[in-house]
Amino acid sequence: MASINVALIGYAFMGRAHSNAYRQVTPFFSPSLTPRMKVICGRNRANVEQAARQLGWEEAATDWRDVVARKDVDLVDVVTGGDTHAEISIAAAQAGKAVFCEKPLARSVEEADAMLAAVKKAGVANMVCHNYRRAPAVTLAKRLIDEGRVGHIRHFRGTYLQEWLVDPNFPRVWRLDREKAGTGTLGDLGSHVIDLARFLVGEIAEVSGTVETFTKERPLPEDPTRKAPVTVDDAFAALVRFTTGAMGSIEATRYAPGRKNHNRFEINGSEGSLGFNLERMNELEVYFRSDSGPERGFHTILVTDRDHHPYVKNWWPPGHIIGYEHTFTHTVYDLLESIAKGTPVAPSFEDGARNQRVIDAIARSAQSRAWTRV
Amino acid sequence: MASINVALIGYAFMGRAHSNAYRQVTPFFSPSLTPRMKVICGRNRANVEQAARQLGWEEAATDWRDVVARKDVDLVDVVTGGDTHAEISIAAAQAGKAVFCEKPLARSVEEADAMLAAVKKAGVANMVCHNYRRAPAVTLAKRLIDEGRVGHIRHFRGTYLQEWLVDPNFPRVWRLDREKAGTGTLGDLGSHVIDLARFLVGEIAEVSGTVETFTKERPLPEDPTRKAPVTVDDAFAALVRFTTGAMGSIEATRYAPGRKNHNRFEINGSEGSLGFNLERMNELEVYFRSDSGPERGFHTILVTDRDHHPYVKNWWPPGHIIGYEHTFTHTVYDLLESIAKGTPVAPSFEDGARNQRVIDAIARSAQSRAWTRV
Amino acid sequence: MASINVALIGYAFMGRAHSNAYRQVTPFFSPSLTPRMKVICGRNRANVEQAARQLGWEEAATDWRDVVARKDVDLVDVVTGGDTHAEISIAAAQAGKAVFCEKPLARSVEEADAMLAAVKKAGVANMVCHNYRRAPAVTLAKRLIDEGRVGHIRHFRGTYLQEWLVDPNFPRVWRLDREKAGTGTLGDLGSHVIDLARFLVGEIAEVSGTVETFTKERPLPEDPTRKAPVTVDDAFAALVRFTTGAMGSIEATRYAPGRKNHNRFEINGSEGSLGFNLERMNELEVYFRSDSGPERGFHTILVTDRDHHPYVKNWWPPGHIIGYEHTFTHTVYDLLESIAKGTPVAPSFEDGARNQRVIDAIARSAQSRAWTRV
Amino acid sequence: MASINVALIGYAFMGRAHSNAYRQVTPFFSPSLTPRMKVICGRNRANVEQAARQLGWEEAATDWRDVVARKDVDLVDVVTGGDTHAEISIAAAQAGKAVFCEKPLARSVEEADAMLAAVKKAGVANMVCHNYRRAPAVTLAKRLIDEGRVGHIRHFRGTYLQEWLVDPNFPRVWRLDREKAGTGTLGDLGSHVIDLARFLVGEIAEVSGTVETFTKERPLPEDPTRKAPVTVDDAFAALVRFTTGAMGSIEATRYAPGRKNHNRFEINGSEGSLGFNLERMNELEVYFRSDSGPERGFHTILVTDRDHHPYVKNWWPPGHIIGYEHTFTHTVYDLLESIAKGTPVAPSFEDGARNQRVIDAIARSAQSRAWTRV
Repeated sequence: MASINVALIGYAFMGRAHSNAYRQVTPFFSPSLTPRMKVICGRNRANVEQAARQLGWEEAATDWRDVVARKDVDLVDVVTGGDTHAEISIAAAQAGKAVFCEKPLARSVEEADAMLAAVKKAGVANMVCHNYRRAPAVTLAKRLIDEGRVGHIRHFRGTYLQEWLVDPNFPRVWRLDREKAGTGTLGDLGSHVIDLARFLVGEIAEVSGTVETFTKERPLPEDPTRKAPVTVDDAFAALVRFTTGAMGSIEATRYAPGRKNHNRFEINGSEGSLGFNLERMNELEVYFRSDSGPERGFHTILVTDRDHHPYVKNWWPPGHIIGYEHTFTHTVYDLLESIAKGTPVAPSFEDGARNQRVIDAIARSAQSRAWTRV
Repeated sequence: MASINVALIGYAFMGRAHSNAYRQVTPFFSPSLTPRMKVICGRNRANVEQAARQLGWEEAATDWRDVVARKDVDLVDVVTGGDTHAEISIAAAQAGKAVFCEKPLARSVEEADAMLAAVKKAGVANMVCHNYRRAPAVTLAKRLIDEGRVGHIRHFRGTYLQEWLVDPNFPRVWRLDREKAGTGTLGDLGSHVIDLARFLVGEIAEVSGTVETFTKERPLPEDPTRKAPVTVDDAFAALVRFTTGAMGSIEATRYAPGRKNHNRFEINGSEGSLGFNLERMNELEVYFRSDSGPERGFHTILVTDRDHHPYVKNWWPPGHIIGYEHTFTHTVYDLLESIAKGTPVAPSFEDGARNQRVIDAIARSAQSRAWTRV
Repeated sequence: MASINVALIGYAFMGRAHSNAYRQVTPFFSPSLTPRMKVICGRNRANVEQAARQLGWEEAATDWRDVVARKDVDLVDVVTGGDTHAEISIAAAQAGKAVFCEKPLARSVEEADAMLAAVKKAGVANMVCHNYRRAPAVTLAKRLIDEGRVGHIRHFRGTYLQEWLVDPNFPRVWRLDREKAGTGTLGDLGSHVIDLARFLVGEIAEVSGTVETFTKERPLPEDPTRKAPVTVDDAFAALVRFTTGAMGSIEATRYAPGRKNHNRFEINGSEGSLGFNLERMNELEVYFRSDSGPERGFHTILVTDRDHHPYVKNWWPPGHIIGYEHTFTHTVYDLLESIAKGTPVAPSFEDGARNQRVIDAIARSAQSRAWTRV
Repeated sequence: MASINVALIGYAFMGRAHSNAYRQVTPFFSPSLTPRMKVICGRNRANVEQAARQLGWEEAATDWRDVVARKDVDLVDVVTGGDTHAEISIAAAQAGKAVFCEKPLARSVEEADAMLAAVKKAGVANMVCHNYRRAPAVTLAKRLIDEGRVGHIRHFRGTYLQEWLVDPNFPRVWRLDREKAGTGTLGDLGSHVIDLARFLVGEIAEVSGTVETFTKERPLPEDPTRKAPVTVDDAFAALVRFTTGAMGSIEATRYAPGRKNHNRFEINGSEGSLGFNLERMNELEVYFRSDSGPERGFHTILVTDRDHHPYVKNWWPPGHIIGYEHTFTHTVYDLLESIAKGTPVAPSFEDGARNQRVIDAIARSAQSRAWTRV
């Protein structure tokens, strides 16, 4: 069986999630291209060597430029902090590698456009990791929409609620620093909601947004006696209009007590409705006007039926739920198949760049305090 | 419009619920026979006069024998303690009155049989108040079963869980005294579950039961420094077999913290399943194998649609839920219509007597520690 | 016991709900002032006489001006279409009557201001019927907020979703005519959400809104072969900022399949969160950071505990849920008590006028496409 | 780091689940003993070689006797059909290997006792794989019980509902053949519920049970034109009494439409209640009487908090749910630690044998139609 050599740049939370996907995709999905976990790269040698052992990579490296240039690397997977996505991805593309980049693709429209130009020019496979498209319940939602089961979509409501900044003494980690992260909730959580909105409903034409930083400064992780300013948004909310005329709202916050990872959407169409919540990732709520009158009600579908539901036949019998990390496995599987077949895969860098435009429009709208075109 | 004169014997919790039903049935259901709230009867003159004023009765009386004998009384409604159901109902039947009696019908099979014989001999309308049959969601469940939507029923699981005896200092009220109440959870809660089982699935052929009294004595309400024995069951559980071969379980307890009024059943048939919980009385859960594969899941039906759901067109628009007491209004409405038309109404005293036989079989089985025929 | 004579102007849906409240408040709440259902008024004599009989009013009348002028009327309750709220309420105030008016108070800020001026000048008791403040779960939410249990509020999300316009052949009823209704979802559903937002969080300082009419014309009720334009909003959405800096969103639609009466809010504060959904009106969801770590999770409170929850001790034992219409009974009870004691009651016409300003700001913002001060 | 060589006997559903656990335990849990996936064994050479490649085993073998005798095997993991658990486990113990055996441990009390005697005599580490003890929510439930948070337990209700036999044309697979499987739902599903009951509540003293085979014969998998008898139970139900006096019920069926993997229990104690459902494996419902009155309600705990909940700190951040197979990883982790430290681990073969006694008592009770001591 053909194989493909992978280099992973970065080894933190997303490094663990991507490594797991490469380990699991072969036993469960038997992809056309078997990923070989060639090399993992990080700045701190001791740490990256430990990560290589722990996560199952053949080699550890500390200079991503060397790694990207290696002849025996076919696919570069970028899971670094947001401030290096562009540089690494562009270099990888220029070296002719397929590029798989964590979300949000970039810190700005300019960066995203440059990255998109690079992969286009190089003609390399490219994908941005918005993994929730491939939660089976979300993939099923997309299928039902494509089949016309909810009709013409009129409403999209997407919220991504977390709680981890409620404590004012939580330290000012890199995600709260504009230089490193680009944005706060906008890029981290909002980009997920925007991707789901674009995936399920279509392109967003214009937005009216507002952003907020509730806690202006926080203790430094390395020295809690000193404080540093929080330079990104703690929360944002936006009204959106899709090109189809559908109305939408998109919101994210890190200040919602009790909401651990509440990535929820609801869609109302002319023939039915759909609802999803990542905290109950294996379930999809559907309502069909085509159900006979007395029986109409939201169905709670446990999306674990191998005969009918996407991806799950490769896992366990019905009712044996799968976990968060499998959304990455599905994403990697589809990426590998697309590379094997030479077909495009979504979300691509094109999607990442369009996503960035929506984020940018929300940020601009929050400044201008008016509706803003994407 | 024709009217019917009602006498209510008793004025406690159920007296309030029944009075409310008579008051509400006319404005909301315009029954063929308008109930005239003629007289309410209780042993304490001051209290019953206060109740008459409060609950809207024309007169108050203290001797039920006089009331039952009155020429201007057409329907006698018995909501007294369990130890007087039989005596009053029989006298009312002998006086030629229609009789409506709270559940459980009696304290024993013998009492129930005597009551049934009396109404049969007198040829009077008779009904036992198992009001939950007429929660719209339960009536809808019955309709779906009758239409064959769940197929051949194989499983019934019914539990009625409350928590009000968890505190060991809760006083020994009349419901905990065998002399007054006949049984504890068996008659109070169990009779409701048995009625739902018989209504929805059919007759119960045999049972294996167990009963328990967790707290053997409790403080007297009138003098908390003294204790008296608890002489009824605090909880019971029974396996049952229906005459159809279906398997079932029936359980009730007053020792389930957090379960306020958790009268829940689930039914599994060859074509689908049904679920209900009184604490979410306006909802019915249904699962149909006939749903297309990818969409199969329990529907949560909000049973408030005037076009499709029983009783609700007389109340409010869709989604405007109704409360517990409306189950009594529906029951009274159907009773009045049956009297007006001279047609039978269920659950009748016949149902009450059959119910009592199941209770009795469970109690006997708990003694013999073996399966027992009803 | 003292009594108060009530005149009800109007007898449609809200007429039934208010009549029920007057009938039920006495047996269940024994208010200090017993309401006497003196006269109901409507334009069609046959209909209003039928309504009087059905709903329990002593007299029927067809000219509201006569009714409002009657010496034996103390309280005028206005449940007419939105186009006559102002005229009737002002006349009632000028006649020295207490005035209770359905929501939305008016069709415009000008009307609302005139109504407010009238009741102020006359010094009469006044209340606008935003009944959901007195769903026990909502009243409990308010109490928890006032006790500081959710801390400083940062987020409010309120949506009111219904589905009754999804069918394009649904007729163009009066609610879809700007002349009669003033607005569509903004006043009908939005005013409820705005009232809850103001009640629970505080005043709204500015808004960014958008409105939509999905179906531009519909068949006339009286002649389905002819169509007439829909001149109100089918849906709206708004971002809001409270004077406290809290972020909020308010949305309503009549195009959400499966959402029958989905008046839902979620509040996130510095110490906890609250959630409510009218379709499960007897439940409140609460999350407290003060819960010990391993046990933290949303509590689903069944708000039916007579010892601890507002209003419910007057109804039934724990777990016996109440219905939609009791929110009116609670409202009428508090209105009667306030009149008896001469104390103010909320929401007053002042609240109604402030509510109208928010509606107006949303409508203006939808025009200007920019943030707009209330 | 020390390692331990593992042999896996069997490669079907459980073979995949156990293999996954060995692959995943190292990257996520860094156990004291690193499992080396030495050899997988099955009767069909081609299949087992394919399984070895797919699942990550170094070697494939076809004779379990050879494998069990290998010097370089330390731990024998038995995931074969139920008819060979005893023979293989006993041989492994006699060869001095640690033994890890799938549930149910045996087909009969005699087999289970022989297995227990063998591991005791050999003094080898032993564990039966009741993996649901180590769903984090279940482990948390156990912790809360041990801390006294639910007080003295009075009620246990456990049901394991599946639907895969509802279709009468589903073939007569090996699980429906008494010779291969020993029992039907009793051993397959019931043993899980019994294990949870014993883990959480304590030993079961006596039972009253009933069993049913709804479909007496089914088509043969290899030739659907021929039918063979179903010789095991399709469903069972039992009342149980714990040695503490607590009441319980245990039920399982493969005929519950819509219930995919509904392993649910509820526990009521003197101070609180607990609820769990495997289909929402990451959630635990708790109710504490110690909560302040107005706030009492079932908490829905999302058991994904690394600071407070068992096992989850090794996986993902809060709200990122884990899947079914992780219960095996936790089980293998604890087994490896126990072997490394030489400490006992539960559930042991002793637990498996006690479990078998409960199954046996239910089967005997179903015959005798009377309460039966375990």
